[in-house]
Formats: sequence, structure tokens, C-alpha cells
Amino acid sequence: MTSFNHVTSEHLSRLTAIVTADNISTSQADIDLHARDQSFFEARPAEVVLFPTTAQQVAEVLKLANEARIPVTPWGVGTGLEGNAIPIHGGILMSFERMNKIVEVHADDFQVTVQPGIGHQDLNAELARYGLFFPPDPGANATVGGMLANNAAGIRTVKYGASKDNVLRMQVALADGRLIHVGSRSVKQSSGYDLLHLFVGSEGTLGIITEATLKLVPVPVHMSAVVAAFPSVESAVETVVAVRGSGLDPAALEFVDAAHAVMLSQSDGVDLSEHPHLFMEFHAVHETVLNDGLEMVREICDEMGAISFRATTDTAERKRLWHARHHSYEIMVRSHPDKQFFIMDVAVPISAYPELIAYVEQIKAERNIAAYLIGHAGDGNIHVELPFTPGDSYEKAMRANHDIVMKALDLGGTATGEHGVGMGKVKYMAVEHGGALDVMRAIKRTLDPNGILNPGKVLPE
Amino acid sequence: MTSFNHVTSEHLSRLTAIVTADNISTSQADIDLHARDQSFFEARPAEVVLFPTTAQQVAEVLKLANEARIPVTPWGVGTGLEGNAIPIHGGILMSFERMNKIVEVHADDFQVTVQPGIGHQDLNAELARYGLFFPPDPGANATVGGMLANNAAGIRTVKYGASKDNVLRMQVALADGRLIHVGSRSVKQSSGYDLLHLFVGSEGTLGIITEATLKLVPVPVHMSAVVAAFPSVESAVETVVAVRGSGLDPAALEFVDAAHAVMLSQSDGVDLSEHPHLFMEFHAVHETVLNDGLEMVREICDEMGAISFRATTDTAERKRLWHARHHSYEIMVRSHPDKQFFIMDVAVPISAYPELIAYVEQIKAERNIAAYLIGHAGDGNIHVELPFTPGDSYEKAMRANHDIVMKALDLGGTATGEHGVGMGKVKYMAVEHGGALDVMRAIKRTLDPNGILNPGKVLPE
Repeated sequence: MTSFNHVTSEHLSRLTAIVTADNISTSQADIDLHARDQSFFEARPAEVVLFPTTAQQVAEVLKLANEARIPVTPWGVGTGLEGNAIPIHGGILMSFERMNKIVEVHADDFQVTVQPGIGHQDLNAELARYGLFFPPDPGANATVGGMLANNAAGIRTVKYGASKDNVLRMQVALADGRLIHVGSRSVKQSSGYDLLHLFVGSEGTLGIITEATLKLVPVPVHMSAVVAAFPSVESAVETVVAVRGSGLDPAALEFVDAAHAVMLSQSDGVDLSEHPHLFMEFHAVHETVLNDGLEMVREICDEMGAISFRATTDTAERKRLWHARHHSYEIMVRSHPDKQFFIMDVAVPISAYPELIAYVEQIKAERNIAAYLIGHAGDGNIHVELPFTPGDSYEKAMRANHDIVMKALDLGGTATGEHGVGMGKVKYMAVEHGGALDVMRAIKRTLDPNGILNPGKVLPE
Repeated sequence: MTSFNHVTSEHLSRLTAIVTADNISTSQADIDLHARDQSFFEARPAEVVLFPTTAQQVAEVLKLANEARIPVTPWGVGTGLEGNAIPIHGGILMSFERMNKIVEVHADDFQVTVQPGIGHQDLNAELARYGLFFPPDPGANATVGGMLANNAAGIRTVKYGASKDNVLRMQVALADGRLIHVGSRSVKQSSGYDLLHLFVGSEGTLGIITEATLKLVPVPVHMSAVVAAFPSVESAVETVVAVRGSGLDPAALEFVDAAHAVMLSQSDGVDLSEHPHLFMEFHAVHETVLNDGLEMVREICDEMGAISFRATTDTAERKRLWHARHHSYEIMVRSHPDKQFFIMDVAVPISAYPELIAYVEQIKAERNIAAYLIGHAGDGNIHVELPFTPGDSYEKAMRANHDIVMKALDLGGTATGEHGVGMGKVKYMAVEHGGALDVMRAIKRTLDPNGILNPGKVLPE
């Protein structure tokens, strides 16, 4: 493990000279606010919190930190679920809340250039008047920089892709203070190595994103919603395969297990039976297209033995049908007032979905664990929500988490579909990547020889 | 520049031991067959041609070559247009023609695992019975390995993405003989660094692809075609922006300039006036969707002042309308029996398309050069086809090529949208990538310290 130095008063004056006195803090309140994310990992304090306002400042801070061997942890808005932005080695916490501007809207190019600290919901509110939006949506109002660093995804990835599919060009500050541009505003590029995607998803361990040009898509004119119940997980998954195979191009294709369906039903206006459910959404330019499409979806669901089928193209009705799914997390928390929740994230090829879910059901039954399954089935991504209280049920939840990750890897899947590695998934990197992990380490050493960038994340120390 | 060793008789016996005597050749015929691609770059002979049959053989050859400092150039089927697979430093030419099998079709996962030497047209012929296809289509029957190494694209990229968007997992042989896996069969993955996309498009300079799992999509059930003429390049490009902004999601959106339209018209059944034209294609699951969509396209084209508009959902009529576009290269060659052709490739943000095309028109007029423009306008990608004869018109074509690349870079574009860097675009890497080129070089040194992998390509020597 690399050894680091502490932040001294001399460092503080030099950092102040770089970012100005308004943009540096050692107050306990700021330290505490940036010591933990939305995961259950314990708080770890940075020594100083910086709020840079320009890419040049970010680069100069990194140059200083690199020479002084001080760790730097970048911070969006703290919505990570795997400790991705917790400053576990202290040092400098670099918040991007003051680099939150839209730099330029390229409406004709379906692109926007932004600073990393802008929230994707805030960005989309601005873009609405151009009839465009940035599709990845992880739920919370995560920053674009955090989403790119993490390769965040969400419910609409089945149609629009993850964060990595919706970015064209970035400015990145390297550990030694160089500022480079990667990618191109040209949507096609076969020129040189794809450094863009090397930095996307690297969680700030190879460089820090200081600006990004994003791909946008037209706001859908017409939307429809479907909620259907199935007699078994298998028939639900067969429906997922058939809907995707039909060419209908769903914009969301979500799975909710029987236990979760009952809980949602009890707390929400929508009536769901104790069966596996699929929630679907379709986007189209013509309402007739939606109606024709819904007819095809109904036929597919019937053929797969659906127990119930509700569909609508009406906006209010669509929102009502999806309300329970969109608010599933709050509903779950409300239903368990005395519990904390661990939300685990794995993904497998869709053909392995029934086996993965059967395994989770087996663990629940054998170990007497409460767990709710909710997943982006169109992508083979599943979240197991594990309620726990400190002590025994925590250990049980952690053991279940471990066993489910190992099962997903065994099924040809990944330890994380969209939450990133952070601290929580580091221990699975060797199993998942084998010899490729050595290549990742070699690239890390090449780009960050002193290991100052978000240490302790992604790669095992 | 790295210095290399020649292939000795001792090397030949060791190579024979690895690949067996059936799969090694030093015959002049085999050397000649692998000495040049479809570009105008001169033939450069390898010293030995290998036809490995397993990934393990590829890895063992690399290990030997790395220790002996012998260059290795991978070869698909020689359809490159920038000298990407020409063995300019001699050494070993590694052909993948005997690693051309489908390893496994994962139909429910919309995936197929293949060896790198399979042609994409041959692959799609096999996949047809599953109702699935691999969408990138560069025209020629390029191998999947070559397409991935090059990040090839083609006319349907506007809807389905380039090669890099249609691959999930690869096995790669590294310079030192390690075999690693990168990516995941899970379509979502936020685990570790994205090495998959680092190798894709690296043209065999960082590692050699020995197996790939590709993403597939359902074969479209209904297709329509549109051919429309416009009074100006600007109005054609405004139409491109409007069609994309409408959410119609075209499967092809091609631009043909006035000169090319006349030439195509003279040699083909379709009647095209001397105006800029757009060729479009749409895919849908319902015929009604196509009809509704075509009505929207017609309205957009009318609004942009289209001079003519032809549309069809009939298969035979669609093929007739598109025939000239699909056969534009052969038509051009036929029309200039005494010429060679240099096909240059750049891409810009679509908003810069009119300025780029105006610049090409200006060069044509000022320098009295024949040139035909044809482009994947939906992606901002343009090909300028420059006929030449050795001597004066060759120099003029090369100078035009250089100036157009510099103009594209100046407009925020790229030196190559889909043909790759190869030998031809190496000299633009510093201008296009700036400081990021140093990072590319550092990664090259990390993964291939002796520089044996396809030397002279992608990075300036």
C-alpha cells in the first residue's frame, strides 16, 4: 500500500493560493458532509475540502498533491452506494459543487458541454426547452461528473444506454497536473486509442473529469406504460426476451419480485398481486405506433401466460401505474421504519436471470432473510434490497450479498452493473477480471504512479 | 524507432512447432497476398505468414516474437483503406482466416461469440435463422476481428452504433503472450477499467483479438426507403438535423453531393437530378409505423424545400431506390476506367457539415480537381472520393486530402470517422489529440514495451 502524507499548514496556504480562500474549508461541518455517501460504509474524514471553480485549479491542486503525496478524492453530490467517494485515506476532498454550469448547448448536434458538478435532473430541466434530454437516470440527482466516473445507468438504459454510451468528449486532469482532452465532438471517431472510455467508469482513480460533452436525444413525444403479472420468474424473463426480440425497443423493462409487489401494493394506489411483475415503458413519435406496439406486447404477455395485463398511453394513468416502481425505495424504507437497507447490485446475461433469482429465493428461504428483488431486467441487472439492523441481521445481509455476487460471477455476470466498485466490490475484482486485473494495475501505475487518485477504490490495495 | 530482428530459420522452426507445418508459409504467393490492402499504399512484404488456429497459438507466437523482437502484424481479409494491416517492418504476418468459426450463439441473450476471422456477412448469413444480426456494415466482407480492431462503422451506425458499440467481451493476446478477457457478457458492467474499448480501435497495436462476443439485434421486419433532392447542402443538412430531432430514429441517413448524384444517375436505373441528395432508411416492427413515419419525413423535407421526394415501403422498390447508393463505389470506378481512387474519411459535428462541404467544393473549383462526396450524414461522417493517375493528379489528390483533414480537425472533427489511422492518418494524431497522445504512447509502452505489435500504425514513430 502506498504511504501518504498529511495536509500541513503549508499545504493549506498553497491550496488557498490555488482555489482562493472562498473555496477551501477545514470546518467540521464540511468535513462531515463529505465523509460518507448513501452506502452503509462508515464516515471517514478528509483533512481539507476544496471547491475548485475551474479546470486549471483542479489540475494545479493535483500537481501539488502528487508532489506532496497527498490523496485526492473527487466528490459529486454523495449519492454513491458503494463508498465510491469516501476519502478513506484522508487528504483532500475535492467537491465539484461550484463547477456546475452548462458551458454550451450544441442543439443542432444533439450535444451539450457541461462542467462535472451539474446534477443530471437540473441539466435536463434546462435542456427541456430545446426538446432534448440526457437519458441516463440513476434515480437520485447525481452529478454528471459522478455519473460518468461511475458509469451510472438506471431504468432507461435498455433503450438509451448507460453513461458511457452517452458521452463524446471530456477534459480530464491527470495526477501530475496535465489537462488533456479525450474523445471527440464527432459522434464517429476511429482515431487513436479510446481514452474516453478508459476514464469513464474509473471512479476518479486514473484522472478527474473537469468537463464533458454529452450526447442528447429528443424528448419522446408519446409514451406508454405496461404492468403485467406472471405465474413465475421464468415466464417473466421469457417475456423480457420476447419483447426485446420483437424489435419493440422498450425504454424501460423492469422486474419486481412477488414479495416486493405485495409491499408496493400495500403502500401505493396500484393493486399488484403476489407474483413476479414486469413494468414496461415505450417511447414513440406517433400515438398510433404506441397502440400498435401495445397490441404486440399484449400478445406476447398472453402467450407467456401473464396473469394480469394493464396498459395505457394516457399520461396520468401511466404515471399512476409506474408510481409504485418509481417510489419503490421510499416505500420499502417506510415499510421498515426500524431497518437500514443494503442495496446490492449485480448483472448477468438475461438467460441467467431465472437461475440468479432462484438462487436469491433459495438463500431467503434457507437463511430466513428478508430481501426484495427489483431489477432492470432488460439489461440483466438486478438489485437485491436487504434490510438489516446492526448486529446479526447485518452479518446475514453481508453474507447474502457476498454469495449473490459470487453466483452472478459464476453465471458469467459482473459484480456491479451500475453502482461501481467503490470500496464494496474491490474484493471481487480478481475473480471477475482474472489476468486483466494486472493490466488495470499497470495502467493505474502508468497514469498515477504515486497512487494519489481516490486510493482504495476499484483496485485492491 | 524501435529496431527489430529478422525472422531466422531457427525462428521458423519454433513457429512451425507452435502452429504446425500446415499453418505457416514463406511462399511468395502468400507473402504477396498479405503485402497490401485496398489502399494505394505500396506493397510491403512480411517474412513469414502464419495461419494460427487457436488463441493459444496466437499467444505463443507473440511470446516468441516479443522475446526475439520480431514485429507481428495481424490480418483479417485485407479490406483496410489506410494501410492498417500492411506489415511495413516485415516480420510475422498473422492471418486469421483459419480462426473463422462461430463459437456459440446465445440467442436469448442477443449475443454471439465468434473467432476473429469470420466475415461479418458470413456471420449474418448464419444468424438469419435466429432472426438476429450484427449491425455494423463497412461494405466489404471485412472480418469481425478487423472491424473491431479498426472500429469499423458504415451506413447503419446512425441507429445501431459502430463496432465499438456492438461488442461486449473479448479475449485478447498481449505482446508478452498473456491471454486475458476484457468486458463482460453482462450488457451492463461498471466493474473495473474499460479495457474492452481500449483494445477496440487500437488496430492490433496493444494486443490481438482472439475471440469476441458481439451484441445482436432483431432483424427488422419492415423497412422503408426515402430519396430526396435539395436545393443546397445547407437545406439537406437541416433536414438531417430535423429528421434526427423528430425522434424517427433513421437506420441510415446518407448524403450524396450533386456531382455524385449525376454520375450515379447516368450509370444506374434511378433518376437523380444535379442536386445534393439524402438517402434514408427506416426500420420498424409495424408497417403502419413506417407509413406514419414517412408522412413525417415528407413534411420535414417539404419544409426544408426539397426539390424531389420519393418514398417506399415496398421491398423491390426500396432496393431499386438504394441500388445506386449501395453500388456507388463500383459505379464511380466504372465511370473512370483509367483512374485509381483515394477514398478519404473524416467526420465532424453535424452542424459543421455545410462548412466542411463548402470547403471541399472550394478546393475542387480552385484547384480543378475531380472529387465526389458521399457521406454518412446522420453521423457527420464524409468520404471524399478522389480519382487520380500516378504523377500530377496524385499529388493534387494528396494535397486535397491533407487540407480536408486539417479543415475537419479545425471544425472540431476527427481525422478518421471509420477507416482508422493505419499508416495514412498517423501524422494527424498530434494535432487531433494534443496532450492525450502522450497518454496513448505511455499506454503503448506499458502494454507493448518492445513495440512489436503492428509497428508504424496509429502512433507516430
